Amino acid sequence: MNKFKELKERAWLCNMELPKRGLVIYTFGNVSAADRAAGVFAIKPSGVPYEELKAEDMVVVDFENNIVEGNLRYSSDTKTHTVLYNNFADVNGVVHTHSTYSVAWAQAGLAIPIFGTTHADHCAGDIPCTDFMSDEAIKGDYEIETGNQIVRTFESISYHETEMVLVAGHGPFTWGSTPEKAVYNSAVLEELAKMAFITRSINSNTPRLKEALVDKHYQRKHGKNAYYGQASK
Amino acid sequence: MNKFKELKERAWLCNMELPKRGLVIYTFGNVSAADRAAGVFAIKPSGVPYEELKAEDMVVVDFENNIVEGNLRYSSDTKTHTVLYNNFADVNGVVHTHSTYSVAWAQAGLAIPIFGTTHADHCAGDIPCTDFMSDEAIKGDYEIETGNQIVRTFESISYHETEMVLVAGHGPFTWGSTPEKAVYNSAVLEELAKMAFITRSINSNTPRLKEALVDKHYQRKHGKNAYYGQASK
Amino acid sequence: MNKFKELKERAWLCNMELPKRGLVIYTFGNVSAADRAAGVFAIKPSGVPYEELKAEDMVVVDFENNIVEGNLRYSSDTKTHTVLYNNFADVNGVVHTHSTYSVAWAQAGLAIPIFGTTHADHCAGDIPCTDFMSDEAIKGDYEIETGNQIVRTFESISYHETEMVLVAGHGPFTWGSTPEKAVYNSAVLEELAKMAFITRSINSNTPRLKEALVDKHYQRKHGKNAYYGQASK
Amino acid sequence: MNKFKELKERAWLCNMELPKRGLVIYTFGNVSAADRAAGVFAIKPSGVPYEELKAEDMVVVDFENNIVEGNLRYSSDTKTHTVLYNNFADVNGVVHTHSTYSVAWAQAGLAIPIFGTTHADHCAGDIPCTDFMSDEAIKGDYEIETGNQIVRTFESISYHETEMVLVAGHGPFTWGSTPEKAVYNSAVLEELAKMAFITRSINSNTPRLKEALVDKHYQRKHGKNAYYGQASK
Repeated sequence: MNKFKELKERAWLCNMELPKRGLVIYTFGNVSAADRAAGVFAIKPSGVPYEELKAEDMVVVDFENNIVEGNLRYSSDTKTHTVLYNNFADVNGVVHTHSTYSVAWAQAGLAIPIFGTTHADHCAGDIPCTDFMSDEAIKGDYEIETGNQIVRTFESISYHETEMVLVAGHGPFTWGSTPEKAVYNSAVLEELAKMAFITRSINSNTPRLKEALVDKHYQRKHGKNAYYGQASK
Repeated sequence: MNKFKELKERAWLCNMELPKRGLVIYTFGNVSAADRAAGVFAIKPSGVPYEELKAEDMVVVDFENNIVEGNLRYSSDTKTHTVLYNNFADVNGVVHTHSTYSVAWAQAGLAIPIFGTTHADHCAGDIPCTDFMSDEAIKGDYEIETGNQIVRTFESISYHETEMVLVAGHGPFTWGSTPEKAVYNSAVLEELAKMAFITRSINSNTPRLKEALVDKHYQRKHGKNAYYGQASK
Repeated sequence: MNKFKELKERAWLCNMELPKRGLVIYTFGNVSAADRAAGVFAIKPSGVPYEELKAEDMVVVDFENNIVEGNLRYSSDTKTHTVLYNNFADVNGVVHTHSTYSVAWAQAGLAIPIFGTTHADHCAGDIPCTDFMSDEAIKGDYEIETGNQIVRTFESISYHETEMVLVAGHGPFTWGSTPEKAVYNSAVLEELAKMAFITRSINSNTPRLKEALVDKHYQRKHGKNAYYGQASK
Repeated sequence: MNKFKELKERAWLCNMELPKRGLVIYTFGNVSAADRAAGVFAIKPSGVPYEELKAEDMVVVDFENNIVEGNLRYSSDTKTHTVLYNNFADVNGVVHTHSTYSVAWAQAGLAIPIFGTTHADHCAGDIPCTDFMSDEAIKGDYEIETGNQIVRTFESISYHETEMVLVAGHGPFTWGSTPEKAVYNSAVLEELAKMAFITRSINSNTPRLKEALVDKHYQRKHGKNAYYGQASK
């Protein structure tokens, strides 16, 4: 049975980008790739090191966490991915890593302030950090609650304009219209986290980027009159 | 039509040095190479990742921002390059990156102090940081205003003696008599930015290098009695 | 005489992981692999750079520090390994490195606080730092005393739940049920040490991770109802 | 004329270790290899990037700075090497780099405190930083004065027990009984500089390593009853 060969191949390729980009060691992350029409997503199996990961290992799951195809146990973070797919309408890829600088901000429990245009090229504001989860939520259905925590954080923020979040005490999740875009966002987030760390170390009073510059950079790349990139892209 | 094959090849090679030197990820930078006699420069197209970039993708532009050769949209930073070419007489290469440590200083809004001889080997003083742009300038012809901001910063500094600048809240631009030298300057700047960050973290009261040492190192390499390097170079 | 060919091969492969993972330069570390049934372990010889290390160079030692097979002098840290094998019953691999961030915490004389789930996925609490050794111990049988210092540190901590330690002023030791697991723990420790350093630099008041989260992450991976990883693993 | 082929080959191999070990970019360093019997040393030519460096480019110089063999101009730091050879009797290799963390301590004008056993394995005390040079010395025979500054710093320190120094505002020099050992010392120094930087960032009150431990580690590796390494080494 290999109905989802292409989807699994794509999810696998995206997973393999994580160690290549220095975002994970061993098993420290997972990517999923969704096929909305088929009502499923393919995700990394739990605890399999990237060095040994094969395309056929990917686990295909529906949006209620039932395994549709695959012989392995799915990533322990799968239910968090499901919550994001069920709440973020046109998202087709989700990534979770434990990349170093992003985790450090998450552990510090702080949003990453929008300090410069590198950040504004990708997000319209700070990269939010969720609240720390309540003991009840932790002891409940933990991975679903992690997803809920993220969704709550985006009640007042557009998940289109900021495709990344830090889960307090844990680490980053990113998403995108494609799984490739979600991986791209994870790499960009790690770079922004590192830049912001150094910036604050140089000048602990660094102000947020002025609103006019945030707007200019975000709009020239993502606005309706965007002139960044190629028209066909 | 391929009148500028050689120039585009050279611009492409210089662009490809950026990811090789760890100065950019994805699309985070651009190099241009000028042919003053022909009245044009070749520059990276907008939004094309370095992994996919080909020599024939380069866009050839004149010094009034008209496309002379090429099928792609030019880098969104092109007009900043043009301003620099039009104001810095014998510059034949310009580079813009979002390299980590240089961006951090730019975000902090601070010049990089001349702390040591590594710095004095390359610049005769601090690496300046522009003022933050006014809202009017941002909402005006932004990329031209970015160039103007740089030019203004060099009213009191020689652009021959300091071939690099930080644009506040944004990131570094470097230039040189050749595009290869401009790329070299970007790599050196990133190293100086990292060294200065660590220096200040070790000793927040580190003084600027004494004037006699600045002068000695700058002159032995760039002065009229320079004895650094090979005579033929 | 090559009775322990397989064991030496395994110890060698584990040793070679250290430079590959960026945990050692030159001769800055050593791995041993035990064969409890045979009453021996194989360990790196002293002062041989990783670049030149061969499987047949490994030295086979019994649990009283007698050489059983091998022509080279064993690692100067061998007796510390022996103390750990003699006190930590089901440990079959021990690793010592001078990896950068772990050494920095050891030099600072501080335990690495459990700041996040990356840490809780691997240890049930802080990564302890031993006391600084007494002058008597240093002038006595130094390497045995180093082992004793570690064993004493684990009188009140489970060496199963925390398979890593910092020796004050020196550096990290890790262990595991297999030598491969011990190497894995060294790489994880270095990552945790780096994350914790950055976390504290961002927010010097970062609290330890709340107990419910420590417990959740540690138990979902290591508890009796663990659901992380594959059943067969 | 190629009387010193072997010496130049050796100097070249040692020079090529610097970029391989991440200690230099472009032209940021130089290694010399001495042949005491022949009364000469081979050194890198000035301003030639490592990427283009060939063994036959090495310049052979006597201990009074006369070129004995070679068509290129010698490194601008050559006279500093000569001073060290003339004052440090059994030194046969000298290295100068602008490696990042070592330069940062030199720019900060601070000795690297002996914080741990990694340091004590290589030096019997702090890695000293020279005083800042006087204006007279800078305007005099600068490179010779740099050498004199180093020699003065070692009036009260054994250059055998500490084979490395920071020149204030400039960067590191290291030496050794062989050029290979001098290169090794440069790599070790950079690692010690990084470890010490992180250590102080974690705990700004970190004390120097207690004397008994300094002595133990230094003596077990370098003392007359040393048991580190192989007897034949």
